Order: sequence, then C-alpha cells, then structure tokens
Amino acid sequence: MSKGRVFIISGPSGSGKDTLLKILFERYPNMKFSISSTTRPMREGEVEGEKYNFISKESFLSMLANDELLEHNEFVGNFYGTPKKPVMDAVSSGEDIIIEVDVNGAAQIREKMPEVISIFIMPPSLEVLKARLSKRGTETKALVEKRLCAALDEIRRAEEYNYIIVNDALDEAIEDITTVINSEKFRLDRQQYLINQILDKA
Amino acid sequence: MSKGRVFIISGPSGSGKDTLLKILFERYPNMKFSISSTTRPMREGEVEGEKYNFISKESFLSMLANDELLEHNEFVGNFYGTPKKPVMDAVSSGEDIIIEVDVNGAAQIREKMPEVISIFIMPPSLEVLKARLSKRGTETKALVEKRLCAALDEIRRAEEYNYIIVNDALDEAIEDITTVINSEKFRLDRQQYLINQILDKA
Repeated sequence: MSKGRVFIISGPSGSGKDTLLKILFERYPNMKFSISSTTRPMREGEVEGEKYNFISKESFLSMLANDELLEHNEFVGNFYGTPKKPVMDAVSSGEDIIIEVDVNGAAQIREKMPEVISIFIMPPSLEVLKARLSKRGTETKALVEKRLCAALDEIRRAEEYNYIIVNDALDEAIEDITTVINSEKFRLDRQQYLINQILDKA
Repeated sequence: MSKGRVFIISGPSGSGKDTLLKILFERYPNMKFSISSTTRPMREGEVEGEKYNFISKESFLSMLANDELLEHNEFVGNFYGTPKKPVMDAVSSGEDIIIEVDVNGAAQIREKMPEVISIFIMPPSLEVLKARLSKRGTETKALVEKRLCAALDEIRRAEEYNYIIVNDALDEAIEDITTVINSEKFRLDRQQYLINQILDKA
C-alpha cells in the first residue's frame, strides 16, 4: 500500500481560498482535512472540531514543547497550530490529507516534511484582488490598503509552492485543484510498488 | 506566454501504449505528436509523415552529424530518430508536444532536455503482460519468451520516469494520462508569469 499524501493549500485573503476549500470538502467527503488547534475563543457559529480545536494556552504550549505541532504561529495574542499526529496517522494509513495554512506555516511544514505537495491559490489579477478585498463595502480605505499589502506579501512567496492555481471562475479552479491532486497519485514514488510487483514475480 | 511542454511516453510491448496514443491523438487534435525519422522502408498501409518520415540513410546520417536529432537508435540495420526542430518549434510557440520513444531514447532526450515530463505506461500485472504478448496466438513459445524479456527490461527502467500509469482499463488510462498532462500546466515554472503580472503592477 502506498502512503497517504499531504497537500498544503495556501492563498491570500482575496484569493477565494476559503470558498474553494469549503466546496472541496463537500464534494470529496473522503478527503481528510487537517484541523488546527487554537487558543483563541470560539466565535458564534463555530463548532468545536470542525475547522478548529479550541484548546487552552497550557495545552497548546505543552504540544509545542513536546514537538506535537507541524507548524505554529501567534496572531494578536492567540496561538494557532497544526497538530502532527492526525497528519502522520493519515499518511501511514494511506489517506490523503489537506492542510490549509499561510505561507509561514507552509514553510515550517515543508522543513519537517519536504515531500508535501503545496498549492498556492492566486487571484486572477491585481484589479480583481483589490475589488475582492474592498467588496464588503464597509471598510475604510486604510483597512483595504492594509489587506492588500498582506495579500501581496503572501503572493511574493507563491514561488515556494509546487503548483499555482488561479481562482477566477470557481468551478474551474475546483477542477484544477482536483486535477493536481489526482495527478500526484501517478508520480513514480507512489507507483514504485507496481514496478516491484511485476519484477518480483518475473 | 508560457513555453510549450515536452511529454515523453514510453511503455513496453504489451502495455497497450500504441492504442492509448492513437486514442489520445484522436481526442486531442490540438496536441502535437513528434514524428520520427527512419531509414526503414515504408510498409503497406503506412503514410509518409503520419507516424514516420521515411528518409534515406544519407539524410539520417547528415541530421545526426549536424546535431539535429534529440535521440536516435539502430534496430536490425535501420535507423530511427526524433528530429529536434519540430520539438523546439512547438516549445517556443507555446505548444505541448508528445514524443513516443523507448527507454533508451527517453534517456537520451532527458540528457538534452532535463525539463521533459516523462510517463511510463505499465501493464497491470505480469499475468496480463504475458497474456497480451501471446495474444496473437500464432507465435512460438520462444518468441513470446523473447518479447517478455524485452518488456521486463523496459519495466526495469520505469524508475527513470516522472509518472507511472497502469493501463488496465483503456478509458481509465486515457483519463489518467490527460490528468497528468493537464496538471503539469499548474506547476510553478509555468505559472511564474502570473505572479510577476500581479507583483509588477502593485
């Protein structure tokens, strides 16, 4: 049996990554998604164990100390991290798993698991990016400007990824992501056992 | 504009590669296929310029001397080779091109163009391979044995390829090949210009 594969998906605010992942999640119920652990308080409408496990600061720091996180970061006083165990369990049981993470987290994971396959979701153009970031309409110009800077900072690091997928039309982007995910299963390292199967018998 | 990509497809006798390529060719009229040059005489039913360009030994040797071949080999006194120019023309005009070639030819091309994407077509099992090789029914046991040895020799070099596709059910194998071909267009090196496009404007 082949090992499961780990896919990292990143994309700036305005790339439409969240909607893409939501649809992927609905369409591919067999695909595993990594659940982040965070110390921030649960918000209204959020469900424990859906996108986040809400844990105490003590638990988080103990996971960190025991090397139980693939990546972690701190954001306005709260910790966020990707627990290592569910990812390793998926890999060893032959299941693929998707980790949604930012460019910094992706770099941390890559260092620990160089074999991860990383996909960066891009907005189709600067104009569309700007339009998406100011879409909600209620934001001040300064806030939109700040979001744009953050998005461009992420796009500057898109070069660290294996695949770049442009999210212009949503359905097309979904198809493109699944094409990449499907194609990776034909890579030599995943198919080596087939070669051995024939040669061992011959 | 991105450059075109070069795909190498190999597979032993009994892998069903020829049927696969025929269907690919019919379904994707826009996909370019490399036409080999050979010094062997044209056979009944063959058309000049379809799968082969039939040329004189003098022309072949002059191409070879002028470094106009990406790979070449000799088989029972006849020369076979892949002309360089049509491949380079396709690449520079942004068109993808498929080269069907054996494991030796593939290795020669890889040395000259390390960026080629190579796909090896495998039979699903040793049993199926044996069955396919003796299918025509009229062959002596010795001939089937010889074909099997040659096929296994090629399979031993499948490790040199980027992707391994098993040809069990034909339609599935076609889908798998097109998945690989499509996914490759999302690779970073092909999408770099999109990143630059956004960053240059910002």
